[in-house]
Amino acid sequence: MTFTQRLRNIQSKQNSLLCIGLDVDIDKIPPHLLSMENPVLGFNRQIIDATHDLVCAYKPNLAFYEAMGKDGFAILRETLKLIPKSILTIGDGKRGDIGNTAERYAKSLFDDFGFDSVTVNPYMGFDSVEPFLANPEKGAFILALTSNAGSKDFQRLKVGIKPLYEKIVLAAKKWNSNQNVGLVIGATHPKELLRVRKIVPDIPILIPGIGKQSGNLKSSIRCGCDKHGQLAVINASRSIIYASSGKDFAEAARTEAKKMVEEMRMTIEQLNN
Amino acid sequence: MTFTQRLRNIQSKQNSLLCIGLDVDIDKIPPHLLSMENPVLGFNRQIIDATHDLVCAYKPNLAFYEAMGKDGFAILRETLKLIPKSILTIGDGKRGDIGNTAERYAKSLFDDFGFDSVTVNPYMGFDSVEPFLANPEKGAFILALTSNAGSKDFQRLKVGIKPLYEKIVLAAKKWNSNQNVGLVIGATHPKELLRVRKIVPDIPILIPGIGKQSGNLKSSIRCGCDKHGQLAVINASRSIIYASSGKDFAEAARTEAKKMVEEMRMTIEQLNN
Repeated sequence: MTFTQRLRNIQSKQNSLLCIGLDVDIDKIPPHLLSMENPVLGFNRQIIDATHDLVCAYKPNLAFYEAMGKDGFAILRETLKLIPKSILTIGDGKRGDIGNTAERYAKSLFDDFGFDSVTVNPYMGFDSVEPFLANPEKGAFILALTSNAGSKDFQRLKVGIKPLYEKIVLAAKKWNSNQNVGLVIGATHPKELLRVRKIVPDIPILIPGIGKQSGNLKSSIRCGCDKHGQLAVINASRSIIYASSGKDFAEAARTEAKKMVEEMRMTIEQLNN
Repeated sequence: MTFTQRLRNIQSKQNSLLCIGLDVDIDKIPPHLLSMENPVLGFNRQIIDATHDLVCAYKPNLAFYEAMGKDGFAILRETLKLIPKSILTIGDGKRGDIGNTAERYAKSLFDDFGFDSVTVNPYMGFDSVEPFLANPEKGAFILALTSNAGSKDFQRLKVGIKPLYEKIVLAAKKWNSNQNVGLVIGATHPKELLRVRKIVPDIPILIPGIGKQSGNLKSSIRCGCDKHGQLAVINASRSIIYASSGKDFAEAARTEAKKMVEEMRMTIEQLNN
């Protein structure tokens, strides 16, 4: 089954477009966990236990685990084992390198860590993305227009009459013969998100930037979903996982996630009417 | 001392612009090493022992270590300890992410691994690069025009009358207030390298693509050096580290490295006359 179909299935099954970013920072987790042998893993276990019926995906950002030092990637591996098989995982590493090196990253992220999908940086062109698209079951979300302030520096530069990110959207569309290409468009750019959804009606779009980065949930749904109210993957990280710094952090994360999912469902219902 | 000055110093001291890429693949190292407890580390130790008086830098590509699985990053940490302190290290990870995440990568690569410099992907703009430039002693080589075939897909797109990579070169020049910005221009583009050197007379340029990727050494020196015959960092990986697959691999690597360094010295001498 192709990655795109897998995403449709889990979004239908869970009736949710929510992806939770497991960007865990030891300085931000509730203090009562710090006496555990492995506080980050304990934190992730409780977040996953409390939210897995509400999400279509979890997205750990590799930087946060790399920054934990020598045990970081082991903690990431253990975290991945806690995620139910039916929920998709997105290895957010934004990798990109020449062909023979990109193959190594694909091997590491898909075969060794076992991620279902990854984020990739397209700046180095097709041969840097190709190894991530070889297996139709595994997906690659290609950075197009990111949620941060720096997205204006190069991504919006005009190439002829089109902005650069649109050139990347068109390339992604061309590279989608295995039905496993996705795109990344920040929630902070709703107008552009709508335009991209028209160009690629059938491609998954990962939408970060809700919550702390102030992107709007309703407009992300309206602009980012396909005609079936699917294929938008709405990511929230800090606003959910750090909803409380007390002993109730997992419950608070669930409450926050549930609120988002209910708002999503309501917005999609309104779209359908 | 700024990163750029540190590079000048080691290039003067060693009279060399050579950087050896430690992109080690367990399938390619000499078979007689496979019975060692840690073949990759043994391989790196012998390569470094045999070549450290000939280089200004070593550049491990993180993908190769990540792809080794759970021990990969530990092997990389051990490898870094084998490199003499005066020789610069380049952590080739081509990272790039939103500001708060890029900070994590910078922390990991500079503070935890202890790299002197890194490669970064500029697609996400200034806030994705900034954390790598905070410490003047540590450098960041920003991808501009890479050595691979895919470099034509986006990097050469025209933005107004200039190609995109030149916009990135101009941004890098602007971001160089700490004298620690570098650029990456593939040896496969000598004409463009010459043009970039004219735009940034004082910025280090990492030049991969010599050897297996068929870039030319002489033209890379002629086009990439500053007026003092410095600041080009010429990388070779496979052509040196896999020069022989026999028991003489380290000696063969030294012979190959020495040949390159002598050709560099001769070319620079001709430039000066």
